[in-house]
Amino acid sequence: MAELEGNCLVGQSGGPTAVINATLAGVIEEALNYECVEEIYGSVNGVMGILNEEFIDLASESQQTIRGLRASPGAALGTCRFQFKKDADFERAIEVFKAHEIRYFFYIGDNDSMATAAKLNSMAADQGYELRVIGIPKTIDNDITRTDHTPGYGSVIKYVATTVREMAFDNDAVGQGDYVSILEVMGRNSGWIAAGASLCKRRDHPHDPPHLIYLPEVPFSTEKFIEDVKRVLQREKYCVIVVGEGLVDSDGNYVSLGSSSMDAFGNVQLGGSGEYLKGLVEKGLGVSARSCKLGIAQRAAMHCASQTDADEAYLAGRQAVIAAVQNGESGKMVTLQRGESDAYVCETGLADLGEVSEGTKRIPEDWINDDGVSMNYPFVKYALPLIQGEVDAHFDNGLPAFSKLKRMPVEKQLVAYAL
Amino acid sequence: MAELEGNCLVGQSGGPTAVINATLAGVIEEALNYECVEEIYGSVNGVMGILNEEFIDLASESQQTIRGLRASPGAALGTCRFQFKKDADFERAIEVFKAHEIRYFFYIGDNDSMATAAKLNSMAADQGYELRVIGIPKTIDNDITRTDHTPGYGSVIKYVATTVREMAFDNDAVGQGDYVSILEVMGRNSGWIAAGASLCKRRDHPHDPPHLIYLPEVPFSTEKFIEDVKRVLQREKYCVIVVGEGLVDSDGNYVSLGSSSMDAFGNVQLGGSGEYLKGLVEKGLGVSARSCKLGIAQRAAMHCASQTDADEAYLAGRQAVIAAVQNGESGKMVTLQRGESDAYVCETGLADLGEVSEGTKRIPEDWINDDGVSMNYPFVKYALPLIQGEVDAHFDNGLPAFSKLKRMPVEKQLVAYAL
Repeated sequence: MAELEGNCLVGQSGGPTAVINATLAGVIEEALNYECVEEIYGSVNGVMGILNEEFIDLASESQQTIRGLRASPGAALGTCRFQFKKDADFERAIEVFKAHEIRYFFYIGDNDSMATAAKLNSMAADQGYELRVIGIPKTIDNDITRTDHTPGYGSVIKYVATTVREMAFDNDAVGQGDYVSILEVMGRNSGWIAAGASLCKRRDHPHDPPHLIYLPEVPFSTEKFIEDVKRVLQREKYCVIVVGEGLVDSDGNYVSLGSSSMDAFGNVQLGGSGEYLKGLVEKGLGVSARSCKLGIAQRAAMHCASQTDADEAYLAGRQAVIAAVQNGESGKMVTLQRGESDAYVCETGLADLGEVSEGTKRIPEDWINDDGVSMNYPFVKYALPLIQGEVDAHFDNGLPAFSKLKRMPVEKQLVAYAL
Repeated sequence: MAELEGNCLVGQSGGPTAVINATLAGVIEEALNYECVEEIYGSVNGVMGILNEEFIDLASESQQTIRGLRASPGAALGTCRFQFKKDADFERAIEVFKAHEIRYFFYIGDNDSMATAAKLNSMAADQGYELRVIGIPKTIDNDITRTDHTPGYGSVIKYVATTVREMAFDNDAVGQGDYVSILEVMGRNSGWIAAGASLCKRRDHPHDPPHLIYLPEVPFSTEKFIEDVKRVLQREKYCVIVVGEGLVDSDGNYVSLGSSSMDAFGNVQLGGSGEYLKGLVEKGLGVSARSCKLGIAQRAAMHCASQTDADEAYLAGRQAVIAAVQNGESGKMVTLQRGESDAYVCETGLADLGEVSEGTKRIPEDWINDDGVSMNYPFVKYALPLIQGEVDAHFDNGLPAFSKLKRMPVEKQLVAYAL
């Protein structure tokens, strides 16, 4: 493969995860290995940084800072939910790439971001501008197709399952046959996160919490819910319920819209399914319930992140650079693939960006037990390897200390663009 | 002091903390040192276990299990909010103590439990039954008088401040001048926990989150709140708010009652102040906000507990036994006292149970800045030593592994008592 000389640009998009910065560190550290890569730039706030020509110089950051990114939450470059809206946006992007001799673009994001990356790739080809575009998956939601799992998922379910286990020890101390405790977790369209809570149920310990898991995949019925809780309370001292924020009824409507607001990106902002179930328990059973809502804390919980997840996120970043620079790949997304062996091994692969961006991956129906409120062994076998190992977050004066980039700006070459 | 031969009983009461089992471990391990202490019993579910004569044999538990209690959340003996209601309850208790030759009673609990312990102590004296009663404070709320701070407080604020710092890194990545993030924490009558979030603000970093802290100590005004948030958003990319569940207006009414339910003990169950503030931000400023509610997860978060707190909780347990067995004390509560030196040192003392049980300790007014939404240096100096060090929770297969007692029952000697 002919060497392609030029600069490299990396951006982060969508909701942060605990390990999205580990991927960024992987991209930066691998890119430093190649003579043909001159500058390593970061795009501030994802593709918005491209339109605004707002780049920072990543090679000038200290090694300590970049190393620290492997254990820092948030998204060090800033993120966005902004998508290119019109052809002019893509044309502007190519113009900016040309002005800064960007030949490699790495975009860390979810489905929507992969679509943007795919279109950028084809626009550059149409214009005869040599550009290699590689997407790198990230999302706590684990709903990207073509990859066995997504970086970010292992950490969020490690934190959620840890929280459920801890809450259960509390409930066990307090409960007297009438204690209901509800944990609401993220997951707009799929129950991958809620399902992950089941890891805290030990094999052959059917009484272990969580006792009931409500997934967006299973249409919610109030009557069945009340029966479910009643059944658990007859059997156990307490009942731990985990519910995804995106719970829907049999007509596909969200059972709760929280304060039913839209976020700045026009998405319905979910939340409140936990409080909703709490109300049902109290009215339907006359039993008091307590709810917790981890909210964005769950996607930022570096202090309880999975080392396996952080390592894989870092690996995905490095592999993206290897694919583009060494192997001349473009228009692909790095995937994580499970090895064939019985012991868990994670390998990487590549999938076409165009294919990835369509559709979301849902939990296989046959991983959900017939009761609709618990996961079976194939799910556990799938998810358990992803939470192994604890990231050794650096604590300073009692609190975790995280890396923050200096953000040395790269000089602009063009006139401003109206977003 | 004449040696008093007999058995020892220990109970746990009220809401669990991350370190209430560390105190239990301290009691058990110290009690094992004395020849005059024959059996070490645990009372199941606090003083309910006394009325029900439901004791377990703690000396028969493995050393590994007892050691593991120092890093296990919940309350290993089970807890209760039950208080003795009538003289007959106290008389029954003395009768049970006599039947089991209980000469030492250690009660780990909050204000209400100290009142129960005080009355048990005087009832035994009235009846001429030699009994030594020592209370050991525990509460995440930090509102017990006569002790510098309470075991349980350091861990909850370490977890809350860690969560705020992590959320802030997420908000910093996502925010564009209009991002409001609200964290609701516990604290029915006092803002100690919410105030603890301020530890994540570094000295001389006025822009650090949390930007606004709303305490039950400061009457809430909607107009001021909207102005506060507006001011922060003009200055920062995002606004992190921490709010105590027990926020009250100028008439002393709770601003939000959540689903306004009572818990099984007839207490108003708070919760919802975070969602309430979210609504105000969205209506008052037209800006979308997100709320998290840590709920009981915060008092069970062993995976993020303070080593200092766990050590002090353990120490308090040992000191209780030393006071009763070696020094013949009774009717006292172990206190934690700060040494005079500049470097933090924790010593223990004793206070009269009767004095302790009256009143709750509130945050000194002059530790709250004039803006009413931030804490000043004396608070930080007070609280920062309490979160130092990380408990090394034992992880097994990706999740924390906690101790659970075998609970070998002690044979009952009396007929059942109607509660």
